[in-house]
Amino acid sequence: MNELSEVAKFVCGLDYDGLPAEVIESAKYPIIDCLGVAVAGLEDDCSRIAAEWVESMAGGEEATLFYAFKRSAAAWTALANGTAAHALDFDDVSFRMMGHPSVALVPAIVALGEVLSSPGKECLLSYVAGLEVAAKTGAALGGNSYMLGWHHTSTLGALGAAASCGKLLGLDEERMACALGISCSLANGLRCNFGTMTKPLHAGMAAMNGVMAAQLAARGFTSNPDALFGENGFARAFSDDADKAQELLDTLGEPYELLDPGLSFKPYPCCRGPQGAIDAALAAREEALATGSIGAAEIKGVECRVPAWLRSVLTYHEPRTGTEGKFSLEFCVTSALLEGGVGVGQFRDEVVTSPPIVETIAKFDWQDLEGDLTSPFASEVIVTLAGGRKAVGKAEKPLGEPGNPMSEEQIDAKYLECVGSIIDAEVAERTLAMLKGLDGLEDINTLVEAYRGQA
Amino acid sequence: MNELSEVAKFVCGLDYDGLPAEVIESAKYPIIDCLGVAVAGLEDDCSRIAAEWVESMAGGEEATLFYAFKRSAAAWTALANGTAAHALDFDDVSFRMMGHPSVALVPAIVALGEVLSSPGKECLLSYVAGLEVAAKTGAALGGNSYMLGWHHTSTLGALGAAASCGKLLGLDEERMACALGISCSLANGLRCNFGTMTKPLHAGMAAMNGVMAAQLAARGFTSNPDALFGENGFARAFSDDADKAQELLDTLGEPYELLDPGLSFKPYPCCRGPQGAIDAALAAREEALATGSIGAAEIKGVECRVPAWLRSVLTYHEPRTGTEGKFSLEFCVTSALLEGGVGVGQFRDEVVTSPPIVETIAKFDWQDLEGDLTSPFASEVIVTLAGGRKAVGKAEKPLGEPGNPMSEEQIDAKYLECVGSIIDAEVAERTLAMLKGLDGLEDINTLVEAYRGQA
Repeated sequence: MNELSEVAKFVCGLDYDGLPAEVIESAKYPIIDCLGVAVAGLEDDCSRIAAEWVESMAGGEEATLFYAFKRSAAAWTALANGTAAHALDFDDVSFRMMGHPSVALVPAIVALGEVLSSPGKECLLSYVAGLEVAAKTGAALGGNSYMLGWHHTSTLGALGAAASCGKLLGLDEERMACALGISCSLANGLRCNFGTMTKPLHAGMAAMNGVMAAQLAARGFTSNPDALFGENGFARAFSDDADKAQELLDTLGEPYELLDPGLSFKPYPCCRGPQGAIDAALAAREEALATGSIGAAEIKGVECRVPAWLRSVLTYHEPRTGTEGKFSLEFCVTSALLEGGVGVGQFRDEVVTSPPIVETIAKFDWQDLEGDLTSPFASEVIVTLAGGRKAVGKAEKPLGEPGNPMSEEQIDAKYLECVGSIIDAEVAERTLAMLKGLDGLEDINTLVEAYRGQA
Repeated sequence: MNELSEVAKFVCGLDYDGLPAEVIESAKYPIIDCLGVAVAGLEDDCSRIAAEWVESMAGGEEATLFYAFKRSAAAWTALANGTAAHALDFDDVSFRMMGHPSVALVPAIVALGEVLSSPGKECLLSYVAGLEVAAKTGAALGGNSYMLGWHHTSTLGALGAAASCGKLLGLDEERMACALGISCSLANGLRCNFGTMTKPLHAGMAAMNGVMAAQLAARGFTSNPDALFGENGFARAFSDDADKAQELLDTLGEPYELLDPGLSFKPYPCCRGPQGAIDAALAAREEALATGSIGAAEIKGVECRVPAWLRSVLTYHEPRTGTEGKFSLEFCVTSALLEGGVGVGQFRDEVVTSPPIVETIAKFDWQDLEGDLTSPFASEVIVTLAGGRKAVGKAEKPLGEPGNPMSEEQIDAKYLECVGSIIDAEVAERTLAMLKGLDGLEDINTLVEAYRGQA
């Protein structure tokens, strides 16, 4: 039974004429009362600051939406750009944070940086600050919060983004603590919404919440400076576990998260689960090509061995859409075997349902990989081809993980492939060069203007 | 130890030149990677809808901020007006929701209603819908979520506001479920921030989240339709308790929350804790006045008996500010005895620290009230006056609770007192008349324009 739909049904079914008259009458009092106290509350400092902040953004074309490269207020821009950044599930991962740090941090930094004309160095610094806060808090609190249903990209992302934005604004310690304390109250995002548009929205919310918390704090808004581990605070509410403060403090910057363990980058725009199997499939394809060709008609069977836990993650055995393909071991492996690469263009409905793919998926044999595994994503692919040929590929640790990182060239190529369908090749190359020299960029607006040239 | 301050200190202490060069270098990759996937994600529907929604509001002077009666986008307006509505802690309470429903619902309804030119009837209806969702969900889930540190005004308020806004927008069942599912992910707000500006912000966030969830859903955004009680959903995350779905469904509209038990309105702009004692003090004052006058010089002693649990709530025994006065039994009782009423104007620093008040507080004797209590707020006040006179006042259940409701006249007077320092008396009377005839108002803009005449 779907209870929420029942609730929705109830709400939709409410009808003015069907309501008892005394319900209508009774409803006037809270409205009167609320408007009265709302007006009375106007002289309070919190009302003034919140309203002035809102007003400052209302007509504010101050930051650039990646979508159509138009402009909007910084906080809203962070929301939209953060959502876009997580739309493909192709962004980086921090396993210690159990989430996606950059889609929370970068859209907030770029939007606010545009307002502040921040130099590239300050953007980089604020990224480091936000990542330390998000990832180290996540590592200290452990997985309990995730198991309760929280999406760390958004909850820890809000804390991280607030730290980044506070850093960019140059907040002092008191104001920074205030920004973080506000962000504790803004943090949100439930895992139940995985597989819907609301999952990418979580990244956008984290980015917006970071901008909002920092801007309110800069204006003098107050919060509890012990909101993270104090009574009724973040650690307790999100993980029912508030005794990890020392662990967090001991690990901030020691070592820097970027150095050890480092982030994990996805070479393929799909769930992390099949990425080891894609590596194995690409290796098997190479081996097969050494002795002939590899096409759907030639493939007699595909045996794929992956750790048993992936059965609960990769649940689309006969995918029908690009989004389902992202969570399908069968599609990802088959696509890698037949195409020799797994890129954004392959996760389209028409590719997922094309005859060679469907035909090959029918020959797929999913087995558990057993023994001592070096990675939870370790995989093997064995292809049996016409004429008795066989090709085998193995991946102990998928490409992009710490320990098997993507090369600089691979990251660059990923960027160019990503932006290629949206912006001109020349702009793509120019913005990549700016990003690679970000520490030398005097004003982040230079970068944003390069993108905006596309509008 | 205040760990958050330590975190803030760490962040503030980060300095570009002090960072290892490889940290700076490493920070470029997530930025490159994130921007790449962000641009690549633009063609996804969720990116388009989020950006179009943001863009639609950027220059949007579509709803009226109570603050200075200027205009802003509806979602931001709801944020600011909701914050103002909770600034004084003078707004209504639902004990079943364990929160303040109207400051989440009404600012959302008025802001969105202004955009939609909604008739008063639709505003009333959407209020009823939102209250049912917020209060009945709260009643079903019980107090566990509150004990974990969540502020229901904001968490349940977001659900309620989404229901109200969805109703106002006329969403169909599928879209309504989607709005509610989005609001589950937007819900936030921690009790650790009580006593700071972030507490009123929680009300504003709930209102904004309601507008945002409904507007995104109306544009086709998706969420999990089982986000309330499903796996990794709202009930589990907020209360670790997901088996109350049937209870919620059984009680929606049966009876309507407004009828039974009804809301609780505060006659005095302070914590609910001292409100019974204020009633008792006013009664004692009446008795004293029957036999003479009552002034600070004449009062020899004030004995006040309240339930023992209030000792943990009313912690300011010698308050120094208006805000502390709101959580001071001594000030509230003394103020009622000397002034014959407790209004907004009394919770000012200069009143709280005035000599007659301070002098009378010094004669205060706080005792526990024992025996069978009819209300957790039952109170007695015994005043000993010069010349051996005594005056006694009792309150079994404070004014404003269901069972001892404020009268229509008292609600009206509260409204007029609340708005009196901000808007003209004529506008105050005119808007009150409109609110009392809200079911006949053709367009909520008529009401808002009346307020705006003040600008």
